[in-house]
Amino acid sequence: MERPESVGGSMRRGDPRRREEWGIEFSRIVAFSDGVFAIAITLLVLQINIPADLPQGTTLFEEIVDQETDFIAYAISFAVLGKLWLAHHRFFAAVERFDSVLMGLNLFYLAWIVLVPFTSEVLGDHGDESAGVILYAIVLAAVSLTFQVQIGYSSRNSLLRPQLREVERRVIGPANFLFAAVFLLSIPVALVSPLAGILMWAVIFFTGGRLGARIAARRA
Amino acid sequence: MERPESVGGSMRRGDPRRREEWGIEFSRIVAFSDGVFAIAITLLVLQINIPADLPQGTTLFEEIVDQETDFIAYAISFAVLGKLWLAHHRFFAAVERFDSVLMGLNLFYLAWIVLVPFTSEVLGDHGDESAGVILYAIVLAAVSLTFQVQIGYSSRNSLLRPQLREVERRVIGPANFLFAAVFLLSIPVALVSPLAGILMWAVIFFTGGRLGARIAARRA
Amino acid sequence: MERPESVGGSMRRGDPRRREEWGIEFSRIVAFSDGVFAIAITLLVLQINIPADLPQGTTLFEEIVDQETDFIAYAISFAVLGKLWLAHHRFFAAVERFDSVLMGLNLFYLAWIVLVPFTSEVLGDHGDESAGVILYAIVLAAVSLTFQVQIGYSSRNSLLRPQLREVERRVIGPANFLFAAVFLLSIPVALVSPLAGILMWAVIFFTGGRLGARIAARRA
Amino acid sequence: MERPESVGGSMRRGDPRRREEWGIEFSRIVAFSDGVFAIAITLLVLQINIPADLPQGTTLFEEIVDQETDFIAYAISFAVLGKLWLAHHRFFAAVERFDSVLMGLNLFYLAWIVLVPFTSEVLGDHGDESAGVILYAIVLAAVSLTFQVQIGYSSRNSLLRPQLREVERRVIGPANFLFAAVFLLSIPVALVSPLAGILMWAVIFFTGGRLGARIAARRA
Repeated sequence: MERPESVGGSMRRGDPRRREEWGIEFSRIVAFSDGVFAIAITLLVLQINIPADLPQGTTLFEEIVDQETDFIAYAISFAVLGKLWLAHHRFFAAVERFDSVLMGLNLFYLAWIVLVPFTSEVLGDHGDESAGVILYAIVLAAVSLTFQVQIGYSSRNSLLRPQLREVERRVIGPANFLFAAVFLLSIPVALVSPLAGILMWAVIFFTGGRLGARIAARRA
Repeated sequence: MERPESVGGSMRRGDPRRREEWGIEFSRIVAFSDGVFAIAITLLVLQINIPADLPQGTTLFEEIVDQETDFIAYAISFAVLGKLWLAHHRFFAAVERFDSVLMGLNLFYLAWIVLVPFTSEVLGDHGDESAGVILYAIVLAAVSLTFQVQIGYSSRNSLLRPQLREVERRVIGPANFLFAAVFLLSIPVALVSPLAGILMWAVIFFTGGRLGARIAARRA
Repeated sequence: MERPESVGGSMRRGDPRRREEWGIEFSRIVAFSDGVFAIAITLLVLQINIPADLPQGTTLFEEIVDQETDFIAYAISFAVLGKLWLAHHRFFAAVERFDSVLMGLNLFYLAWIVLVPFTSEVLGDHGDESAGVILYAIVLAAVSLTFQVQIGYSSRNSLLRPQLREVERRVIGPANFLFAAVFLLSIPVALVSPLAGILMWAVIFFTGGRLGARIAARRA
Repeated sequence: MERPESVGGSMRRGDPRRREEWGIEFSRIVAFSDGVFAIAITLLVLQINIPADLPQGTTLFEEIVDQETDFIAYAISFAVLGKLWLAHHRFFAAVERFDSVLMGLNLFYLAWIVLVPFTSEVLGDHGDESAGVILYAIVLAAVSLTFQVQIGYSSRNSLLRPQLREVERRVIGPANFLFAAVFLLSIPVALVSPLAGILMWAVIFFTGGRLGARIAARRA
């Protein structure tokens, strides 16, 4: 928008463009990702349902309390998607150039993000069964891993602002790797105890930031 | 976008950035919030439903009239979400700097906003029961309180434009506090009479602006 | 964004702001409206449904053909919402200043837009009944009338760019008024023949532009 | 936004505007299209469903595995919509001017995009029946053809940046035409074998880019 003379066009690998030259196009990618996140996070509410006609013999209060696991799954998924969006936000603030490979990787990443409302619903309905917890863990591990691939690719191909390349490599990368590891590890754990698997996520959620910072400090 | 030399990167507490430096990033937060509001307000329509196959012996006209409480709940919730969005809009117009705490608080606030379509559906189906009205009041009180926390935090940490800090502190703050108080007060009231609880909201909705202005004038 | 020195803040009636001063805020209103339109137009697809388990004795082909009226309702509603969005787009391109009244009117207008997917579903399921057609006509008439109020208000209060004030008053206004009139007139017609009511909309849809231009020419 | 003096207003055919003059309006069209794409791609997840109460005698694991075809349809549709969005993104990066005809064509194109979540659901439930595959192929062929019309129209009417007109005509055009041809050809094929029809899409999906480039090279 600022540079009418800038040319749009083909975005082949090895032909990365600076974000300033591509103003409107870069912002479209970011806006599209934000849109997908905003819709996915809002669709989470569809998993909580109270029938218009209550089953005989139950009060509305009992019916609401009965949705307890749906509310917990909603809270977990909102927090998870919120944190993932913040990380995505922070990562793309560091992206200086982009190419069609990064766009493709980002779409692949979003394909897993969109699955979260579905896995969240299953978690709310069947969180006491191994399969429900494992499904959730698989999707979140895939999210973390595809995010890791984006960080690695843009770091190797100099798509990040120089000042921030190190931050990405030393802080966001390890923190995200930790996430992926915990979700992968929770899969065998959930086979034995679904609740223990969920608790592992809670632990990493609340300590992940500090742990990532410590790892980063050690590597510095 | 305007300042290619500006650096993106970590946004730690105590390290707030001016919105001009962070042009695109600040607008992403605002756009994300707007997206969530727009989706939540549009999902309200899903609560109104007329079956493709009408129950034996009812006409379509009767069936539409039967949705009366759903239409009322839709109108209330659209007005409430619209008013909340205007307040959010006005508040973020005053935000000059932001940090990761404000971003987190905003996400927490949005987590309650997203619940509104669900509570609205319950209100439409069970607005004559205490539990339905109380559920709605709890979510709206939580919305007001988390908004209050955002106003307080950004006011204390000098994240607001100086000219507007006073406006926030003296006008938006008290008006919002009034909202929270009324929703909290409507909880015990709804235990006795659900309708009286709903009427309390109507009163504050139509007089809240004037009352807030009067409070502001007195404090000035 | 371009003018960091511009101040955000209270937007009272009689205190309209120029869109340039309010860059980001004005674009938020427009983006919010666009978001609501985009979601409403996409939710139209939810009215078309084919069960995973087909009723005994029907083929998938028959089942798809059976959705015929749903496809027609989808096509009508997509065209209507598309045309309304274009008009909204054109109108807001002419808005130079805005105040809180215009924002409120715009929200009230959007409250009717959001109802379109619901009325469209009813039309698809019960388009052969008067009540279904009348419900649709009422919502669309309300959309046109609330749009008319926005045009009138911003024209009277000098919120439009001077060069375009006349265009609005002489072209968009009458064309929109014609829309409102036809939807209102189709209500009594649909009482007698639902199909005749729908055909009235088709006529105005395809001839409305030309008619509006002719009216404008005569008044010039 | 950059040029406050620029005038908004009527956008008649034969009166195309440069995108710089129309900054905010052009970005609204693009943002609206992106919004529709983002919502449609996120609604794809609604087709995958696992009941809260499992049928007697099935485990959750079996139930998840049973959704196999839904997952495949989700993956196909996400990839297809993602690729279509990238093409739309690339095309609009080359658009320098636009008029109301292009806006109308774009809306008509989006009307087909919005149908994809519906056809995807049918494909997931009935992908082994000819009618399910043909429905999907018809919608995707319509998408490609309406995109082709947009490319042709804007190329003929000099709405594209001069440097990119050739790219559009020689690369994007033929690649898109190939897509349309394959989807059309898959219709008779699916009459005989639904699976063969789906495989045709997979082949063009993975080889389409290379084939399109080869055609472009030959024509150069």
